[in-house]
Amino acid sequence: MTTLNSIAGQLDGQAIELPSWAFGNSGTRFKVFATPGTPRTIQEKLADAAQVHGVTGLAPKVALHIPWDKVDDYSALREFAGDLGVALGTINSNTFQDDAYKFGSLTHADAAIRQQAIDHHFECIDIMHATGSQDLKIWLADGTNYPGQGDMRGRQDRLADSLEQIYARLGSEQRLVLEYKFFEPAFYHTDVPDWGTSYAQVAALGDKAMVCLDTGHHAPGTNIEFIVMQLLRLGKLGSFDFNSRFYADDDLIVGAADPFQLFRIMVEVVRGGGYGPANQDGSSPVAFMLDQCHNVEDKIPGQIRSVLNVQEMTARALLVDRAALDAAQTAGDVLGANGILMDAFYTDVRGDLAAWREGRGLPADPLAAYAASGYQAQIAADRVGGTQSSWGA
Amino acid sequence: MTTLNSIAGQLDGQAIELPSWAFGNSGTRFKVFATPGTPRTIQEKLADAAQVHGVTGLAPKVALHIPWDKVDDYSALREFAGDLGVALGTINSNTFQDDAYKFGSLTHADAAIRQQAIDHHFECIDIMHATGSQDLKIWLADGTNYPGQGDMRGRQDRLADSLEQIYARLGSEQRLVLEYKFFEPAFYHTDVPDWGTSYAQVAALGDKAMVCLDTGHHAPGTNIEFIVMQLLRLGKLGSFDFNSRFYADDDLIVGAADPFQLFRIMVEVVRGGGYGPANQDGSSPVAFMLDQCHNVEDKIPGQIRSVLNVQEMTARALLVDRAALDAAQTAGDVLGANGILMDAFYTDVRGDLAAWREGRGLPADPLAAYAASGYQAQIAADRVGGTQSSWGA
Amino acid sequence: MTTLNSIAGQLDGQAIELPSWAFGNSGTRFKVFATPGTPRTIQEKLADAAQVHGVTGLAPKVALHIPWDKVDDYSALREFAGDLGVALGTINSNTFQDDAYKFGSLTHADAAIRQQAIDHHFECIDIMHATGSQDLKIWLADGTNYPGQGDMRGRQDRLADSLEQIYARLGSEQRLVLEYKFFEPAFYHTDVPDWGTSYAQVAALGDKAMVCLDTGHHAPGTNIEFIVMQLLRLGKLGSFDFNSRFYADDDLIVGAADPFQLFRIMVEVVRGGGYGPANQDGSSPVAFMLDQCHNVEDKIPGQIRSVLNVQEMTARALLVDRAALDAAQTAGDVLGANGILMDAFYTDVRGDLAAWREGRGLPADPLAAYAASGYQAQIAADRVGGTQSSWGA
Amino acid sequence: MTTLNSIAGQLDGQAIELPSWAFGNSGTRFKVFATPGTPRTIQEKLADAAQVHGVTGLAPKVALHIPWDKVDDYSALREFAGDLGVALGTINSNTFQDDAYKFGSLTHADAAIRQQAIDHHFECIDIMHATGSQDLKIWLADGTNYPGQGDMRGRQDRLADSLEQIYARLGSEQRLVLEYKFFEPAFYHTDVPDWGTSYAQVAALGDKAMVCLDTGHHAPGTNIEFIVMQLLRLGKLGSFDFNSRFYADDDLIVGAADPFQLFRIMVEVVRGGGYGPANQDGSSPVAFMLDQCHNVEDKIPGQIRSVLNVQEMTARALLVDRAALDAAQTAGDVLGANGILMDAFYTDVRGDLAAWREGRGLPADPLAAYAASGYQAQIAADRVGGTQSSWGA
Repeated sequence: MTTLNSIAGQLDGQAIELPSWAFGNSGTRFKVFATPGTPRTIQEKLADAAQVHGVTGLAPKVALHIPWDKVDDYSALREFAGDLGVALGTINSNTFQDDAYKFGSLTHADAAIRQQAIDHHFECIDIMHATGSQDLKIWLADGTNYPGQGDMRGRQDRLADSLEQIYARLGSEQRLVLEYKFFEPAFYHTDVPDWGTSYAQVAALGDKAMVCLDTGHHAPGTNIEFIVMQLLRLGKLGSFDFNSRFYADDDLIVGAADPFQLFRIMVEVVRGGGYGPANQDGSSPVAFMLDQCHNVEDKIPGQIRSVLNVQEMTARALLVDRAALDAAQTAGDVLGANGILMDAFYTDVRGDLAAWREGRGLPADPLAAYAASGYQAQIAADRVGGTQSSWGA
Repeated sequence: MTTLNSIAGQLDGQAIELPSWAFGNSGTRFKVFATPGTPRTIQEKLADAAQVHGVTGLAPKVALHIPWDKVDDYSALREFAGDLGVALGTINSNTFQDDAYKFGSLTHADAAIRQQAIDHHFECIDIMHATGSQDLKIWLADGTNYPGQGDMRGRQDRLADSLEQIYARLGSEQRLVLEYKFFEPAFYHTDVPDWGTSYAQVAALGDKAMVCLDTGHHAPGTNIEFIVMQLLRLGKLGSFDFNSRFYADDDLIVGAADPFQLFRIMVEVVRGGGYGPANQDGSSPVAFMLDQCHNVEDKIPGQIRSVLNVQEMTARALLVDRAALDAAQTAGDVLGANGILMDAFYTDVRGDLAAWREGRGLPADPLAAYAASGYQAQIAADRVGGTQSSWGA
Repeated sequence: MTTLNSIAGQLDGQAIELPSWAFGNSGTRFKVFATPGTPRTIQEKLADAAQVHGVTGLAPKVALHIPWDKVDDYSALREFAGDLGVALGTINSNTFQDDAYKFGSLTHADAAIRQQAIDHHFECIDIMHATGSQDLKIWLADGTNYPGQGDMRGRQDRLADSLEQIYARLGSEQRLVLEYKFFEPAFYHTDVPDWGTSYAQVAALGDKAMVCLDTGHHAPGTNIEFIVMQLLRLGKLGSFDFNSRFYADDDLIVGAADPFQLFRIMVEVVRGGGYGPANQDGSSPVAFMLDQCHNVEDKIPGQIRSVLNVQEMTARALLVDRAALDAAQTAGDVLGANGILMDAFYTDVRGDLAAWREGRGLPADPLAAYAASGYQAQIAADRVGGTQSSWGA
Repeated sequence: MTTLNSIAGQLDGQAIELPSWAFGNSGTRFKVFATPGTPRTIQEKLADAAQVHGVTGLAPKVALHIPWDKVDDYSALREFAGDLGVALGTINSNTFQDDAYKFGSLTHADAAIRQQAIDHHFECIDIMHATGSQDLKIWLADGTNYPGQGDMRGRQDRLADSLEQIYARLGSEQRLVLEYKFFEPAFYHTDVPDWGTSYAQVAALGDKAMVCLDTGHHAPGTNIEFIVMQLLRLGKLGSFDFNSRFYADDDLIVGAADPFQLFRIMVEVVRGGGYGPANQDGSSPVAFMLDQCHNVEDKIPGQIRSVLNVQEMTARALLVDRAALDAAQTAGDVLGANGILMDAFYTDVRGDLAAWREGRGLPADPLAAYAASGYQAQIAADRVGGTQSSWGA
């Protein structure tokens, strides 16, 4: 089979965007546990994110969440990040924490509240110009809890209208990516519950509108790699929100719950042209992001573990002997074809990836390097007082 | 609230298509139980279907399955059905029982096998001309059981090409409806697993291609009425395959497993304009069909029960006080809006529907009338010898 | 079929316990919406609960949650409740919001933390003596998020030991009811995930230990009424936590998501002897409680709607013609037996129940009576300042 | 970490029982595909099974299914198997294909049919004496398709009585293992749907009654390794039916759908004492069996792949550094503990296992060795005429 050596070059360009909120506290409706050293500001989140990039070389960008990461001067923030060796990435809007949005935002029946939500996205676009961000990511918490509570059809039509207004405001290099989610926080219906809805909505907007696939936002049993294949085929896979789950939207570390599924997803990404050199204009056709909650585990090591998991599975996916696989598939050799895939999956790439890192001046063992750095003890000591960041702020 | 009287007129046009195969034996991979009186021929199936229509007035059409219902002379069959008081309806193709289709049909990597499957659909279209059928329904069993077994992307592209060829053969009054299914008989991936895939495929074909929604073909927890809303909004809901389920594609009597879900589906059908007077050309915008298995219960009474369930839920859906509902929804009155919906659901329409039937010369109690007719004893006595129909023939 | 008249007497004793926390604010990890008039104290919660009982006659008890409802003088609280016309019911322990419990409580590997959790239950038992409560309900948030994080076997053994200590402290009239839950807040494993585990644990304790069945705590597709049947058969169904769900533990109004399921549950309760006159000692063999979140709907009306839903389904369950059902079941008459069940389900009992209420000096329409009472406006005006109750306090 | 060398001895005793029916044809309700060389008799199935054992050294026993594998002389069959180098294993009863069992077998309301089912098990016990089998495995297809169709409580009581009669007939060295299944072929309720029911039933019988865990028989999302842990803790895990699934009871090759899940299961087996040297009397405390369908892939290679998958995951499970894991767990080091588990999972044991095989006179690559043997071509040529075995015969 293919050896890692032969694919090392393909690994070089890999970039996985970190979510700023992964460094803040998070939890469930039952409890949010605080931890020493948790950032109080976006600047501290960026500093933590830079640690992840520093030991892995995989995470050059940090996604922001508005209003959680609001600052007065985004140009200064951009420079601050640059000094840390990272860039500002996707801007995530938030229309789920204002009291006005109790019954919806971009879908709301009340024109004033809907306008408020649209205006929020205009503000996000303004921020994108300042931060140099390419993508505006929209995840809607809109939905209802009881049959009859809302008019699903009217809401869908209003959503289309709202998106159209937001889309019209985008700059020529900017994109809108629309995330879908099966359920939560709404428990009867969600206004963008599946890829089909997200696809139908963005297809109506135009070329700069794409779908965001969060790996934790599907019904039980859903074949996610099929959706990856389909969206790439339709030219509408804009970005990933990586995480993993056993039950609902658990937001666990990507690859932790079902590593084989992550492998299959990466195989389809590679197969469908979603991985590889950036477009001519420097943008990546598919943006790879994390979207996770480190409720009980350490946050910075959790992010390091996550980007390593993505890299390891990407390596395995690249190792698939495509020619042999095609031959076995065409021959109807079920076990043979499956065996070729499994051969790549079961290959232990960790040693070779450690060597790959060392060859690039990175630590062979990023988690050990981070642990040895003393950074965690430092921030625990330094970050005293203030309010630790969480989803609320 | 609205009274049944006020909606009686709206009930008059209701037509639910019966599947010929519901009258044959069916079962699971473990066992197919035979029953006395099971039809041996399509003519006997039509006779049974006519019984259902006779006591309910709700089932004027019978869908055929090719090759299970193949005959030499479809014009004669059409006349035969007409004499029984029913018409021939949707033609269902079958690409899952020929040995050639072990690894696919319209998606197959082998051009010859793919052509065989396309040709089968050409034959079905020819039959439609003879039977006067409007719809060609395609449910594909295509898929794979193991990761790597097939190239999902190549299969999807070949599917698009195959459908294009079939679509090009349609007559001007004919439609192609593409069904989707979550899983089974394939256990890793299905080539048309969700409404999004079916929608993307038919949208690429043209106005005469539509989606078929089988209520049993979704992942656990899927909000089916949302999909109904969305497909109606997109103008692509072609037909329903009604049945019900607790687990997988159980194919139980429609409304048996979750009557409230059937109600919500019918509410969205009405809301979205999917129910009502036929189009000018006589065709119905949405075709309502049953697709069920009566594994352990009596078949003809099972079909009677099914069409009555659909009628009863349609009546309840029509009873929803739409103006009051809109007002409550707009006001953000969650319990009020939900209460208006539930009020219609909990209304016992059975007495009024019995009266509705009597007013049209139908028996008040169709199941009792059928039981009293002696038909079951007659067919049990008459249909001796031959091979009882089942999915195999 | 049986008429409501004949079962009116059986409805008289029905009592559904209200959870004090249903009157406080609740929400998801994304947002908790506040509402005017939300109680700040347990006394105000009791006042709200008394409103529910006042208009329905169905809710004579209120369950407390410790420490959320801690007071200095429980005898005084008991008297306060009594003056409002309600009694204090089940005591719910809480071992999920103290920082010490991040990695478990009754299952914790650290003996000191485990003792803290045991001591908390001792305190709850002391409170029960003061409040006159019969049941100590234990719902454990214990579990892990990642494979390997904990030793599931060791945790189970420690749980058994902890429960044994708590059980030993119970008074002779007191019971321990152990709730199980499929997932959340733990996302890989839950220490009491299913009825089998709860049953095995309480069976090892003795007669005063029972299982609590929360209707929202099961895997998708689980046949809950089967579990009801089985636990009644094994003599171990201690109590219900009623609510409803479409996806996970949505905690919606009981009967809202799947009214037919609630009906089937009540049918098995009646069939298995779980409904009816209290035991000689005054205790009820099965305690019926609500455990819900009114995230977006009004709380007091939400509770009124809930107890009415339970009553309506109980009435329908009692209406099942058991003799006819037995005969049809024995005869293998599938459609006949199912039809008998559905006949009861589809019977509109609402008018008769309104009459039942009026005959007992209660308002025919409890929701309208509550709305007309002016109570909501009064508490919205009165309850200004202070901290609204929620899960945090 | 532990090296494979150090655990090689622990691998030596591993034995995985093959199901005779895996060598016959199987499929779905839609189609059963036939293949050249499929056995027509139990003798031919045994010959095929011997091939699997011959190249892997892992499969010394073959489970029989009665009546599919009925012969006149079981002693002769035992000798025949012995000559092939394999032994006869578990006897599986079948109460789902006789017309009498349409509405149940051991649970049937009709005493005569119930007696027929009990007698069938007596016959199986007689066969066990002749074959030298230890285990009588009971999987019941009993259940209902519609609410109300059966009396679940009465059925459960009759099941208990039937099992008691069967149990009383067991020889002193024989065991009864009761399998549970979530659904199928029954679609509303299954009489033994979950481990709790199976456990409650066998606990009432005595020490020789145990639970059989089929890995494909759970609700979506179920944590199976938790059940493994619990049943081992309760001393009631009798046997495994290994297979894998993406959706329902797909019966795919074990480890194919979720290799990490198989790993976690084996980790709990090892942790709980379910793996290791046979008991003093030669019996194994937990019997490891396959129960799969090779619908589209080659059958003998499918079985070879399956036992290798179990062996590879057993090796990885044995490699877990238990001392380090305990330390990390106790320290609350979430990522550390998880990392130790993942380290074992990601270790590529295939090379070492090839060496292990060669050291024992087995082929390094069993699949290649089988392919090179010419056996498949031979049976395809030889086995002409007759009726290929399938579930029906």
